[in-house]
Amino acid sequence: MPLVTLPDQDWIEDLGPVDGVEMLSWDIVSEPPRPADVVLVVPPYLGSREPLHRLSLLPNLRVVQLLTAGYDDVLPSLPPGVRLANAVGVHDASTAELAVGLVIAALRGIPEFVLAQRESRWLPLEMRPALADRHVLLVGYGSVGRAVASRLAPFEVALTAVASRPRAGDDLVERVHGVAELPDLLPRHDVVVVVVPLTAATTGLVDAAFLARMADGALLVNVSRGKVLDTDALVAEGGRVRAAVDVTDPEPLPAGHPLWRTPNVLVSPHVGGATSAFRPRAVRLLRAQLSALGRGEQLRHVVATG
Amino acid sequence: MPLVTLPDQDWIEDLGPVDGVEMLSWDIVSEPPRPADVVLVVPPYLGSREPLHRLSLLPNLRVVQLLTAGYDDVLPSLPPGVRLANAVGVHDASTAELAVGLVIAALRGIPEFVLAQRESRWLPLEMRPALADRHVLLVGYGSVGRAVASRLAPFEVALTAVASRPRAGDDLVERVHGVAELPDLLPRHDVVVVVVPLTAATTGLVDAAFLARMADGALLVNVSRGKVLDTDALVAEGGRVRAAVDVTDPEPLPAGHPLWRTPNVLVSPHVGGATSAFRPRAVRLLRAQLSALGRGEQLRHVVATG
Repeated sequence: MPLVTLPDQDWIEDLGPVDGVEMLSWDIVSEPPRPADVVLVVPPYLGSREPLHRLSLLPNLRVVQLLTAGYDDVLPSLPPGVRLANAVGVHDASTAELAVGLVIAALRGIPEFVLAQRESRWLPLEMRPALADRHVLLVGYGSVGRAVASRLAPFEVALTAVASRPRAGDDLVERVHGVAELPDLLPRHDVVVVVVPLTAATTGLVDAAFLARMADGALLVNVSRGKVLDTDALVAEGGRVRAAVDVTDPEPLPAGHPLWRTPNVLVSPHVGGATSAFRPRAVRLLRAQLSALGRGEQLRHVVATG
Repeated sequence: MPLVTLPDQDWIEDLGPVDGVEMLSWDIVSEPPRPADVVLVVPPYLGSREPLHRLSLLPNLRVVQLLTAGYDDVLPSLPPGVRLANAVGVHDASTAELAVGLVIAALRGIPEFVLAQRESRWLPLEMRPALADRHVLLVGYGSVGRAVASRLAPFEVALTAVASRPRAGDDLVERVHGVAELPDLLPRHDVVVVVVPLTAATTGLVDAAFLARMADGALLVNVSRGKVLDTDALVAEGGRVRAAVDVTDPEPLPAGHPLWRTPNVLVSPHVGGATSAFRPRAVRLLRAQLSALGRGEQLRHVVATG
């Protein structure tokens, strides 16, 4: 029976028995249990990726199943021939609702209200932009991008989606534009939400030229990875483009970094996925993946092979 | 031809000509133009209601068409026999998106991030509640309540609606519960959004007993009117119940008021309706109402008669 490791005993209990699979807990830091038997490892959700180099201690390892959607930081530790599956869908709800929350907070002025409240100060009434009637551009239209789109749809917005390659649309967008169309699309949108995976192609995608194409006062929201956005370029905008970023480069953002004090920038400390929504969805994904393993079927969501 | 007054010339230009109606601008503060001819007045959107006592200068006034959804503060100035129409639908999008934004901001910790950012401080990661999987109770299920429901629907939440009287549901909620069921419903919900008009029945609806029925850590969002919520009772909760309030009693909230510093309370300065979403929707409503007047038809959205 294939041996699978889960981060701790709680996961094994939450999953319950899965036909054809044996489960043990392993935190990837301590000695692996029965190294020769382990075929699939689920590393802990949070914490350093550094101990992943210990995967090389497992001679018969076939799959690493992540609990994160992002996997760029795991690739260097992936032993040759081992497949890597990410947690597609697990973080969609949590990340997408944060993206929507950041959009509304930034447009409607919630950060200003919080700071005024600290001074017991009622701000004078002024007309602010609403999310309604805004043209929203989704840069990235995978699982999280579609989750953002479905949540934004009832807000009376116009949605445009961009992905690496142009393709047909769905019930939310008429068509998916290719990334080559970005320069034309950016100036025509009020809100730009970045939800791409970090790859060689997306590293630095949001650079000075990208930002320069955005209209004065337009809002950029990044809930993908910090390195997708050129932090220095955003700082250099000096608030001309508004921004709400849940991820930064470097991360964590050090105390002296100028992004903290760039006007019209809201920083949240990479909280896209770390919510109560995570565990029930992760348990559903793991049960499906381990059941497939137990039946000798292919696992889904394989994003790379070492 | 019936004479209608609009708050200023911009409104008249935005509306364009309406068959069978003559339009002049009147700010309700200066002398009214041709008082004997005016049959409908649209008072300015913002600013004091105090000058409304001048409506008594218009002997043939038949209708006051508000640009606000709330109308409680106009009733004392309404001359006998004059009908009052409110701006149903005009503020739905703006108010509903603020309600959703306040819910997400409060649950996901955005106020804490804003305060930490001010100190250039990256908060340590902790698991927070997501909106996903939450049980959300809408207290009030009129035009704004339904707008909140339609926006919350894709967030993987369970929605319950309460109105003054129980009735059948719609595509968003299975049924609409009556207000008598509130004591049973409150303890079973994580988020309570208050979107009722201010009436004798709703004044103080959210009192100490209401709050006491809410679970520890549950979130109350008030985007209706300040007097629907007993401010002292919320302060007395001392943060046991979380809250995000766009309206307060008194309003504006004075500098020394303890609500400013009650833990787990977010105060926004009554910005539900004052957004870019307002004007295009107001123009659509006024055009429909004035066209009806020009055709000699009944106006819609009449909420009171003086």
